[in-house]
This record gives sequence, C-alpha cells and structure tokens, in this order.
Amino acid sequence: MKHFDFEEERVKQEILRLGAKRVLIQLPEGLKPEAPYLAKIIEKLGILPIVSADPCYGACHLATAEAESLGVDLTIHYGHSKLLKYERVPTIYVEARATINVDDAVEKALPMLEKWRKIGLTTTVQHVQTLDDVREILLRAGKTVVIGDAGRLNYPGQVVGCDYSNAKSVAKDVEAFLFIGGGQFHALGVALSTSKPTVVVDLFEKRAYSIDKEAERIIKQRWASIEEAKTAKIFAVLVGLKPGQKKLEEALNVKKRLEGDGKTAYLFVAREITPELLLEFPTVDAYVNTACPRVSLDDALRFPKPVLMVNEALVVVGELSWEELCKKGFFEN
Amino acid sequence: MKHFDFEEERVKQEILRLGAKRVLIQLPEGLKPEAPYLAKIIEKLGILPIVSADPCYGACHLATAEAESLGVDLTIHYGHSKLLKYERVPTIYVEARATINVDDAVEKALPMLEKWRKIGLTTTVQHVQTLDDVREILLRAGKTVVIGDAGRLNYPGQVVGCDYSNAKSVAKDVEAFLFIGGGQFHALGVALSTSKPTVVVDLFEKRAYSIDKEAERIIKQRWASIEEAKTAKIFAVLVGLKPGQKKLEEALNVKKRLEGDGKTAYLFVAREITPELLLEFPTVDAYVNTACPRVSLDDALRFPKPVLMVNEALVVVGELSWEELCKKGFFEN
Repeated sequence: MKHFDFEEERVKQEILRLGAKRVLIQLPEGLKPEAPYLAKIIEKLGILPIVSADPCYGACHLATAEAESLGVDLTIHYGHSKLLKYERVPTIYVEARATINVDDAVEKALPMLEKWRKIGLTTTVQHVQTLDDVREILLRAGKTVVIGDAGRLNYPGQVVGCDYSNAKSVAKDVEAFLFIGGGQFHALGVALSTSKPTVVVDLFEKRAYSIDKEAERIIKQRWASIEEAKTAKIFAVLVGLKPGQKKLEEALNVKKRLEGDGKTAYLFVAREITPELLLEFPTVDAYVNTACPRVSLDDALRFPKPVLMVNEALVVVGELSWEELCKKGFFEN
Repeated sequence: MKHFDFEEERVKQEILRLGAKRVLIQLPEGLKPEAPYLAKIIEKLGILPIVSADPCYGACHLATAEAESLGVDLTIHYGHSKLLKYERVPTIYVEARATINVDDAVEKALPMLEKWRKIGLTTTVQHVQTLDDVREILLRAGKTVVIGDAGRLNYPGQVVGCDYSNAKSVAKDVEAFLFIGGGQFHALGVALSTSKPTVVVDLFEKRAYSIDKEAERIIKQRWASIEEAKTAKIFAVLVGLKPGQKKLEEALNVKKRLEGDGKTAYLFVAREITPELLLEFPTVDAYVNTACPRVSLDDALRFPKPVLMVNEALVVVGELSWEELCKKGFFEN
C-alpha cells in the first residue's frame, strides 16, 4: 500500500481550512485496507472520521447520501478523479497516484509491440503522471506515440471503467494500445471500445501481456447474452441509485422500446446489482442495466439471466445490428 | 405464493385516492417473486410501478431514499407492519396476511407441549389473525394461554426480527412459548429473548419442532465471539443507513466505551453488512454492529471476524457480565 500517495498533508490542510468537524472517508476496494490508517490521521486532528465500508468502484459512487445522512461536512474520496459536475457535500478527491517506477515493466512490453509502429497510450488516474516517461521509452524504441484527449475526463490518456473516449478519439491513428496500470479491468475496456490490439503493462506484477484473447472471449459471451435475451418475454430494466449512475429517463426509454418490440418490461431499482438480487425474480427472463455497464460485463458469468447493457438492448429490439454495436462500442451512448 | 393476501383492491383504491403517478413497490425476500405480478396490476391503472430489488428484511428497511430519489409519490411496502413513526413519502403497508389454515399444524405441536401448562403465544404479522384459533385449540387441550402486549408493536403476540417485547412481557407467566409462522428466524429470537422452551408451528411445512437446540448452539457461538473480541485491539463500530437502523449516537457511545477500555475504535458506515465487506479491512480485529442485530446473529459463521451486537460489546468492556447479558437479552437496549 505504500505504492500510493495519499496526500496526507493536503488532506489535513483542507480539513482545517474548511473547519470540518465530521469527515467521511470513501475508498475503492483496492485501497480499503488503508482506511484505519487514514482515519487515524484525521482523528489526531480532533475531528471525527467515518469510513464508508460499502462497495466503491468509481467516482460515480460518491457517497453523497451517506454524507448527508450522517451530517458530515466533508467527504474525502480516494482513488478516483472528480467525475460529477458538483457535489452536494464538500468533497476532496485524493487521486492516490502510484509512486511506483514504470521503466522495467514498460521495457518488458516492447517485444510485444514489435509488429506495430503507432502506439496509443492509456492509463488510469493513478498513473497519468507516468505517461511522459512511457512516451520517452517508446520513442527511443522507434515508435510513434499518440495520447488522446476527448475532453470528457480529467487527464489526456486517462480512462475510467465506463469511459474510453480518450482512447477512441485516437483509435484511427494508432495500430495498437498500451495500457499502463494494474489488472485487466481497464485494459479490457480499451480493447472492447477501440477494437485494437491492446497490451497491458502491469506495474504491480511487473509484467506485460496482451488482453486480446480475453476481449475476444468477452465479445463471444456478449453475443450469446444478446441472443438469449432475444427469446426473452419478460424484461426488467435496472435503474441505479448512485449519484453518477441514476439514469431513470434512459430506463424509461429502454422500457418503451422493449414494449414496442412486443416484450413486457418492468423498472427495477437497485443500489448494488448482484447475482443474489436477481435470483429473487425467477419469472424475469432478462435484464437491461442502465446503471454501471461494467457490472453487466464483468459479472456476466455469475448472473442467472442475461444482464444487457443499453446498447445491447438496442440489438435485441432490432434498432442496431451486432456489427454496428461492435463498432459503436458497448459503453458509449 | 397464493398463500398471502396482497389486498389488490385496497391498493388500487389508495393509489387512485392519492392520485399517485409513480409508485415504488418494496417486498421482503420471500415475496419478491410476486413483484412482476403486483407491478402489472398497477401498470394496468396507467400508473408507473418501480420495483425495489434491493434486499429488504423489515419495515426498518423502508425505501425512503429510493422513493425520494426517483420522484415517487407513493411507496407500497409489502410483508411488514408499520414501524417508523412517520414516512417522508406516503406509504401503504400491505401486511400480506397468510390465508393458510393453522389447525393441523397446531395439533401436531400439542404432544411437544405435554410437559407444560402455561403457554405463551407469539407470531409474525402474517399470522396474527390466527392467534384466536390457536388459543382455542390450546384451551381445548387443557392449556392456559397468554398473549403478551408490551405496546411497542402493532398487534398483541406479534414479534419482529429484533423486537420480542411482547414475548418478554409475559415470559415470567408462562412455561413455554409456541411460535406460529414459518422457519426458525423469529422463533429463535423468542427463545433467545425469553430463555424459555420454544416450539415452532411451521404452517408452510405443516410440522412442529423445538427450536431449543438451535438456540443453545447460537448462545455458545455468541459466547465464543465475545471471548474472541475481548482479545481484539482494533474495532470498527458499524453504523447502518436504513431509516429504522441508523443509530449514530449509539455508535459514538460504543466507540467511547471501547476507547475507555483501551481499545482503538473507528466508525464505519454500511448499507448492507456482508462478509465480503468486512474482508476488505484485514487490520480490523472485531466489529460492533449498531444496525440490524440479526445480521450479527444469523450470519455469524460467514463473517471473518466477530461482529458483536451492542449489548455484547458491553460484556467486552466489562460493563455487563455474560449472565446479565443472557438475562437482559441480546437485542434489547
């Protein structure tokens, strides 16, 4: 955990500047083990820290309702950059930048990029500060480097779980993408959104690998889910409740389109969409998920029924072809 | 599912009387499969139904925040009686009374009550209307029947997951309790709260059995959890967020008492307290749960660390002895 910069000094200064008496700490799953350490720092200032233990996978999960309900004057949200336009409770974002060196891991990726010259660079907010170094290494290896900026996220080259606009904006200019980070989650999003070969530089495991086989597997699995949903009669359209995930109008729209296609469709609202939740509704044949699209994608094998993303539902009702979906992308409206 | 009265006609009349345009349907886990059927009835009136898919185990879970967030004008809460003093969004409670006959199952319980003459009767809201019939059967069998009413719940003899005040109020007057309902959950609460032999009449399985062995097992397990927590150094005090479960002041009080006993204690807030949630905090040695006490009790074996109820924490800090706890009860303040 010492791989991340928790900006203790800035946090302290901000708390004192705002005169906060009660502070909510929110961390994504990977950083949660640090909660007691971070709470202790705040408590030492004579201020009450409260840790949000609920799942958190993005700044779209901002614990606004919790903060209001607990009478908190400040939320400190770790591990993500600002996403919502404004927060109902004052909020500090601590991006938890990684303090890990990238050189060795990037060198390991070079042989995998042999076939291509034009490389697109992508990463999460934890590693945006490394992109200049990575670019240097690639330039020295004779590559052309492109870092996209579509203007929707906070940093050039940045991706978040459901937004690959920066990668897409340069996809036509590159032969392959290099993703700098940890794990498959974001790299998979890059591959699916751009249909380009994508290599992961995993800084924590200090290795590099292609994500393309996994992306292929996922695409096949999406196709199967859509085909299964085409035969479904009763749908539930899932509406999320988290600040950046609530899309009631979109859900109403999907319901109407399904009904127009002769299906029965109900609106279901859920905070966390889990396999256990859906098991309670045996008469529902398929779901359309208007909340976090990654839940549909990453938990697919655990769900008892197809849980489609919105664009996939358009294929079911015949408004989009499978090929158009693959071109448009699974996440983007 | 046809065993329950969903009061379709009253629901329709109330919706029309209130002029509701958008209605939230909330059902406990056992009744959730009926959600599409109940939604359909509302949709036929030209009104938009939205089904809450999140877990619901009591009227303390009332989906107030969801209703407000979705701009709903009416919540229909099924399967529980009114618990909160007032609701921020207009709410109808449909108690889902069982329409099942009790005679055969009660007759099966009579041989198990042979040793005792004075019998206390308890049940859930689904079956309160059967208590007169059950009393008759017991009287004919030569028993004295006592039905407690401590004035906290809606019906004499009624129990809910965390409130056995009606049973406790007559415990000294009876030799054993008969619980009318389904499953072990509430009967276990009766046995633990009263320390009296308790026989379950399971109307759905049409059989009767003693819950005493299970209660003994649970008590041993609670003792072990408390002993384990005594050696813990770092505690997290869990605060709930559901309308009838949020006890921030009580949590602050527990934190102070733990600290007074030389422990380190942090406040954690959580909507659903699950084993997966607690696995994220490896440095926390034990938890005190101020939200739903049944989570501590019923999920104990699935939690990686002790998750004590508030009264149990008082044993850890030496303010209550184990014997006093057993006498006072696990749930009651």
